[in-house]
Amino acid sequence: MSELDETIAKLKYDAAGLVPAVVVDAEDRSVLMVAWMNDESLRRTIETGRTHFFSRSRGRLWMKGETSGHTQEVRAIYVDCDADTLLIEVTQRGAACHKGYRSCFYRKLTGAGTWEVVAEKVFDPDAVYTDDG
Amino acid sequence: MSELDETIAKLKYDAAGLVPAVVVDAEDRSVLMVAWMNDESLRRTIETGRTHFFSRSRGRLWMKGETSGHTQEVRAIYVDCDADTLLIEVTQRGAACHKGYRSCFYRKLTGAGTWEVVAEKVFDPDAVYTDDG
Repeated sequence: MSELDETIAKLKYDAAGLVPAVVVDAEDRSVLMVAWMNDESLRRTIETGRTHFFSRSRGRLWMKGETSGHTQEVRAIYVDCDADTLLIEVTQRGAACHKGYRSCFYRKLTGAGTWEVVAEKVFDPDAVYTDDG
Repeated sequence: MSELDETIAKLKYDAAGLVPAVVVDAEDRSVLMVAWMNDESLRRTIETGRTHFFSRSRGRLWMKGETSGHTQEVRAIYVDCDADTLLIEVTQRGAACHKGYRSCFYRKLTGAGTWEVVAEKVFDPDAVYTDDG
Protein backbone atom coordinates (compact mmCIF):
# COMPACT_ATOMS: atom_id res chain seq x y z
CA MET A 1 0.00 0.00 0.00
CA SER A 2 1.48 3.36 -1.02
CA GLU A 3 1.40 6.39 1.26
CA LEU A 4 -1.31 7.87 -0.92
CA ASP A 5 -3.38 4.68 -0.74
CA GLU A 6 -3.14 4.83 3.03
CA THR A 7 -3.99 8.52 3.16
CA ILE A 8 -7.07 7.97 0.99
CA ALA A 9 -8.14 4.89 2.97
CA LYS A 10 -7.81 6.68 6.30
CA LEU A 11 -10.33 9.45 5.60
CA LYS A 12 -13.49 9.19 7.67
CA TYR A 13 -16.08 8.48 5.01
CA ASP A 14 -19.75 8.47 5.96
CA ALA A 15 -21.98 5.38 5.82
CA ALA A 16 -22.28 5.84 2.05
CA GLY A 17 -18.50 6.00 1.65
CA LEU A 18 -18.46 9.74 0.97
CA VAL A 19 -16.91 12.93 2.32
CA PRO A 20 -17.99 16.48 1.44
CA ALA A 21 -15.47 18.44 -0.62
CA VAL A 22 -15.52 22.24 -0.52
CA VAL A 23 -14.14 23.70 -3.74
CA VAL A 24 -12.61 27.17 -3.54
CA ASP A 25 -11.22 29.46 -6.20
CA ALA A 26 -7.42 29.57 -5.88
CA GLU A 27 -7.38 33.18 -7.08
CA ASP A 28 -10.04 35.01 -5.08
CA ARG A 29 -10.64 32.29 -2.43
CA SER A 30 -14.41 32.32 -2.98
CA VAL A 31 -16.30 29.10 -2.32
CA LEU A 32 -17.40 27.77 -5.69
CA MET A 33 -19.32 24.63 -4.75
CA VAL A 34 -19.62 21.70 -2.39
CA ALA A 35 -19.84 18.18 -3.76
CA TRP A 36 -19.15 14.64 -2.57
CA MET A 37 -16.16 12.39 -3.06
CA ASN A 38 -15.62 8.71 -2.49
CA ASP A 39 -12.17 7.16 -2.39
CA GLU A 40 -12.10 6.59 -6.14
CA SER A 41 -13.11 10.15 -7.04
CA LEU A 42 -10.43 11.51 -4.72
CA ARG A 43 -7.84 9.23 -6.30
CA ARG A 44 -8.83 10.33 -9.81
CA THR A 45 -8.77 13.96 -8.70
CA ILE A 46 -5.21 13.55 -7.45
CA GLU A 47 -4.02 11.49 -10.41
CA THR A 48 -5.55 13.68 -13.15
CA GLY A 49 -5.29 17.08 -11.47
CA ARG A 50 -8.96 17.68 -12.26
CA THR A 51 -11.79 17.41 -9.77
CA HIS A 52 -13.89 14.26 -9.84
CA PHE A 53 -16.89 13.72 -7.58
CA PHE A 54 -19.45 11.08 -6.78
CA SER A 55 -23.00 12.03 -7.67
CA ARG A 56 -25.42 10.83 -5.01
CA SER A 57 -28.42 11.36 -7.28
CA ARG A 58 -26.93 9.63 -10.32
CA GLY A 59 -24.96 7.06 -8.32
CA ARG A 60 -21.80 7.47 -10.37
CA LEU A 61 -18.45 9.17 -10.62
CA TRP A 62 -18.28 12.36 -12.66
CA MET A 63 -15.61 14.81 -13.66
CA LYS A 64 -16.50 18.45 -13.11
CA GLY A 65 -16.85 19.96 -16.55
CA GLU A 66 -17.37 16.67 -18.41
CA THR A 67 -20.52 18.13 -20.02
CA SER A 68 -19.93 21.87 -19.80
CA GLY A 69 -16.18 22.01 -20.34
CA HIS A 70 -16.00 24.00 -17.10
CA THR A 71 -13.24 21.92 -15.56
CA GLN A 72 -11.38 22.62 -12.34
CA GLU A 73 -7.59 22.32 -12.21
CA VAL A 74 -6.49 21.29 -8.75
CA ARG A 75 -3.96 23.57 -7.03
CA ALA A 76 -4.05 22.13 -3.50
CA ILE A 77 -6.01 19.69 -1.35
CA TYR A 78 -6.54 20.17 2.39
CA VAL A 79 -8.22 17.97 5.00
CA ASP A 80 -9.94 19.09 8.17
CA CYS A 81 -9.12 18.18 11.78
CA ASP A 82 -11.65 15.33 11.84
CA ALA A 83 -10.46 13.95 8.47
CA ASP A 84 -14.05 13.88 7.26
CA THR A 85 -14.10 16.93 4.96
CA LEU A 86 -11.84 18.03 2.10
CA LEU A 87 -11.02 21.52 0.86
CA ILE A 88 -9.85 21.76 -2.74
CA GLU A 89 -8.29 24.88 -4.25
CA VAL A 90 -8.80 25.04 -7.97
CA THR A 91 -8.41 27.17 -11.03
CA GLN A 92 -11.94 27.24 -12.42
CA ARG A 93 -12.46 27.24 -16.16
CA GLY A 94 -15.75 28.97 -16.98
CA ALA A 95 -18.05 28.71 -13.99
CA ALA A 96 -18.73 26.18 -11.26
CA CYS A 97 -22.51 26.33 -11.08
CA HIS A 98 -24.71 24.47 -13.55
CA LYS A 99 -27.22 27.30 -13.20
CA GLY A 100 -24.81 29.66 -14.97
CA TYR A 101 -23.23 31.40 -11.99
CA ARG A 102 -19.53 31.37 -11.16
CA SER A 103 -20.31 30.04 -7.65
CA CYS A 104 -23.19 27.82 -6.57
CA PHE A 105 -23.68 30.15 -3.60
CA TYR A 106 -25.34 32.97 -5.51
CA ARG A 107 -28.28 33.48 -3.13
CA LYS A 108 -28.07 35.37 0.15
CA LEU A 109 -30.52 35.39 3.03
CA THR A 110 -32.33 38.72 3.37
CA GLY A 111 -33.59 40.34 6.54
CA ALA A 112 -37.08 39.33 5.42
CA GLY A 113 -36.09 35.66 5.55
CA THR A 114 -36.00 35.03 1.80
CA TRP A 115 -33.19 34.12 -0.62
CA GLU A 116 -32.04 36.91 -2.92
CA VAL A 117 -29.87 36.34 -5.99
CA VAL A 118 -26.74 38.45 -5.48
CA ALA A 119 -24.61 37.38 -8.45
CA GLU A 120 -24.75 37.71 -12.22
CA LYS A 121 -24.92 34.74 -14.56
CA VAL A 122 -21.72 34.24 -16.51
CA PHE A 123 -23.11 31.73 -19.01
CA ASP A 124 -26.45 30.53 -20.32
CA PRO A 125 -27.07 27.05 -18.92
CA ASP A 126 -29.58 26.22 -21.67
CA ALA A 127 -26.85 26.68 -24.26
CA VAL A 128 -24.34 24.53 -22.35
CA TYR A 129 -26.41 21.65 -21.02
CA THR A 130 -28.51 20.19 -23.76
CA ASP A 131 -29.86 17.15 -21.90
CA ASP A 132 -30.73 16.97 -18.18
CA GLY A 133 -28.96 20.18 -17.17
CA MET B 1 -45.91 30.39 8.57
CA SER B 2 -43.47 33.30 8.22
CA GLU B 3 -41.25 33.74 5.18
CA LEU B 4 -38.29 32.65 7.28
CA ASP B 5 -40.15 29.53 8.49
CA GLU B 6 -40.84 28.65 4.88
CA THR B 7 -37.26 29.33 3.79
CA ILE B 8 -35.92 27.10 6.56
CA ALA B 9 -38.47 24.36 5.85
CA LYS B 10 -37.70 24.33 2.13
CA LEU B 11 -34.00 23.46 2.42
CA LYS B 12 -33.17 19.99 1.17
CA TYR B 13 -32.07 18.27 4.35
CA ASP B 14 -30.57 14.79 4.16
CA ALA B 15 -32.19 11.68 5.65
CA ALA B 16 -30.95 12.75 9.10
CA GLY B 17 -32.48 16.23 8.71
CA LEU B 18 -29.12 17.93 8.19
CA VAL B 19 -27.33 20.12 5.67
CA PRO B 20 -23.59 20.86 5.61
CA ALA B 21 -22.64 24.44 6.47
CA VAL B 22 -19.35 25.86 5.22
CA VAL B 23 -18.12 28.61 7.53
CA VAL B 24 -15.85 31.25 5.99
CA ASP B 25 -14.00 34.18 7.52
CA ALA B 26 -15.71 37.41 6.47
CA GLU B 27 -12.36 39.24 6.48
CA ASP B 28 -9.95 37.05 4.54
CA ARG B 29 -12.53 34.63 3.04
CA SER B 30 -10.66 31.55 4.23
CA VAL B 31 -12.71 28.45 4.96
CA LEU B 32 -12.70 27.99 8.72
CA MET B 33 -14.72 24.79 9.16
CA VAL B 34 -17.58 22.67 7.90
CA ALA B 35 -20.27 21.52 10.31
CA TRP B 36 -23.87 20.34 10.14
CA MET B 37 -27.13 22.20 10.71
CA ASN B 38 -30.66 21.02 11.20
CA ASP B 39 -33.62 23.39 10.93
CA GLU B 40 -33.43 24.36 14.60
CA SER B 41 -29.73 25.18 14.54
CA LEU B 42 -30.20 27.33 11.45
CA ARG B 43 -33.09 29.15 13.15
CA ARG B 44 -31.01 29.81 16.27
CA THR B 45 -28.09 30.93 14.11
CA ILE B 46 -30.32 33.48 12.39
CA GLU B 47 -32.09 34.60 15.57
CA THR B 48 -28.99 34.97 17.75
CA GLY B 49 -26.48 36.03 15.09
CA ARG B 50 -24.10 33.33 16.32
CA THR B 51 -23.49 30.00 14.61
CA HIS B 52 -25.25 26.96 16.05
CA PHE B 53 -24.77 23.46 14.67
CA PHE B 54 -26.03 19.95 15.21
CA SER B 55 -23.40 17.51 16.42
CA ARG B 56 -23.85 14.13 14.76
CA SER B 57 -21.56 12.43 17.28
CA ARG B 58 -23.18 13.98 20.36
CA GLY B 59 -26.70 14.07 18.89
CA ARG B 60 -27.40 17.58 20.09
CA LEU B 61 -27.42 21.25 19.18
CA TRP B 62 -24.34 23.26 20.09
CA MET B 63 -23.26 26.86 19.78
CA LYS B 64 -19.80 27.33 18.31
CA GLY B 65 -17.68 28.70 21.15
CA GLU B 66 -19.94 27.50 23.97
CA THR B 67 -16.92 25.84 25.63
CA SER B 68 -13.99 27.75 24.16
CA GLY B 69 -15.49 31.24 23.92
CA HIS B 70 -14.46 31.18 20.26
CA THR B 71 -17.83 32.28 18.93
CA GLN B 72 -18.69 33.20 15.36
CA GLU B 73 -20.73 36.33 14.62
CA VAL B 74 -22.79 35.84 11.50
CA ARG B 75 -22.29 38.39 8.71
CA ALA B 76 -24.17 36.67 5.88
CA ILE B 77 -25.79 33.37 4.97
CA TYR B 78 -25.84 31.95 1.44
CA VAL B 79 -27.45 28.84 -0.01
CA ASP B 80 -26.30 26.83 -3.00
CA CYS B 81 -28.16 26.08 -6.23
CA ASP B 82 -29.46 22.74 -4.95
CA ALA B 83 -30.57 24.25 -1.61
CA ASP B 84 -28.74 21.48 0.21
CA THR B 85 -25.64 23.34 1.45
CA LEU B 86 -25.19 26.60 3.37
CA LEU B 87 -22.31 29.07 3.31
CA ILE B 88 -21.96 31.25 6.37
CA GLU B 89 -19.69 34.30 6.54
CA VAL B 90 -18.61 35.05 10.07
CA THR B 91 -16.36 37.16 12.19
CA GLN B 92 -14.41 34.55 14.12
CA ARG B 93 -13.46 35.24 17.73
CA GLY B 94 -10.29 33.34 18.59
CA ALA B 95 -10.02 30.32 16.30
CA ALA B 96 -12.41 27.91 14.66
CA CYS B 97 -10.59 24.64 15.17
CA HIS B 98 -10.72 22.75 18.45
CA LYS B 99 -7.16 21.58 17.73
CA GLY B 100 -5.89 25.15 18.20
CA TYR B 101 -5.67 26.30 14.60
CA ARG B 102 -7.57 29.24 13.12
CA SER B 103 -9.02 26.98 10.42
CA CYS B 104 -9.83 23.27 10.62
CA PHE B 105 -8.13 22.86 7.23
CA TYR B 106 -4.57 23.12 8.49
CA ARG B 107 -3.23 20.04 6.66
CA LYS B 108 -2.31 19.97 2.99
CA LEU B 109 -1.70 16.98 0.74
CA THR B 110 1.95 16.63 -0.24
CA GLY B 111 3.34 15.21 -3.47
CA ALA B 112 4.28 12.13 -1.44
CA GLY B 113 0.61 11.50 -0.63
CA THR B 114 0.74 12.47 3.06
CA TRP B 115 -0.89 15.27 5.04
CA GLU B 116 1.44 18.07 6.13
CA VAL B 117 0.53 20.66 8.75
CA VAL B 118 0.82 24.06 7.03
CA ALA B 119 -0.55 26.38 9.73
CA GLU B 120 0.52 27.54 13.18
CA LYS B 121 -1.53 26.93 16.30
CA VAL B 122 -3.07 30.11 17.68
CA PHE B 123 -4.13 28.67 21.03
CA ASP B 124 -3.39 25.69 23.24
CA PRO B 125 -6.39 23.37 23.10
CA ASP B 126 -5.45 21.69 26.39
CA ALA B 127 -5.80 25.01 28.18
CA VAL B 128 -9.17 25.77 26.58
CA TYR B 129 -11.00 22.45 26.58
CA THR B 130 -10.80 20.86 29.98
CA ASP B 131 -13.14 17.92 29.35
CA ASP B 132 -13.55 15.97 26.13
CA GLY B 133 -11.81 18.48 23.87
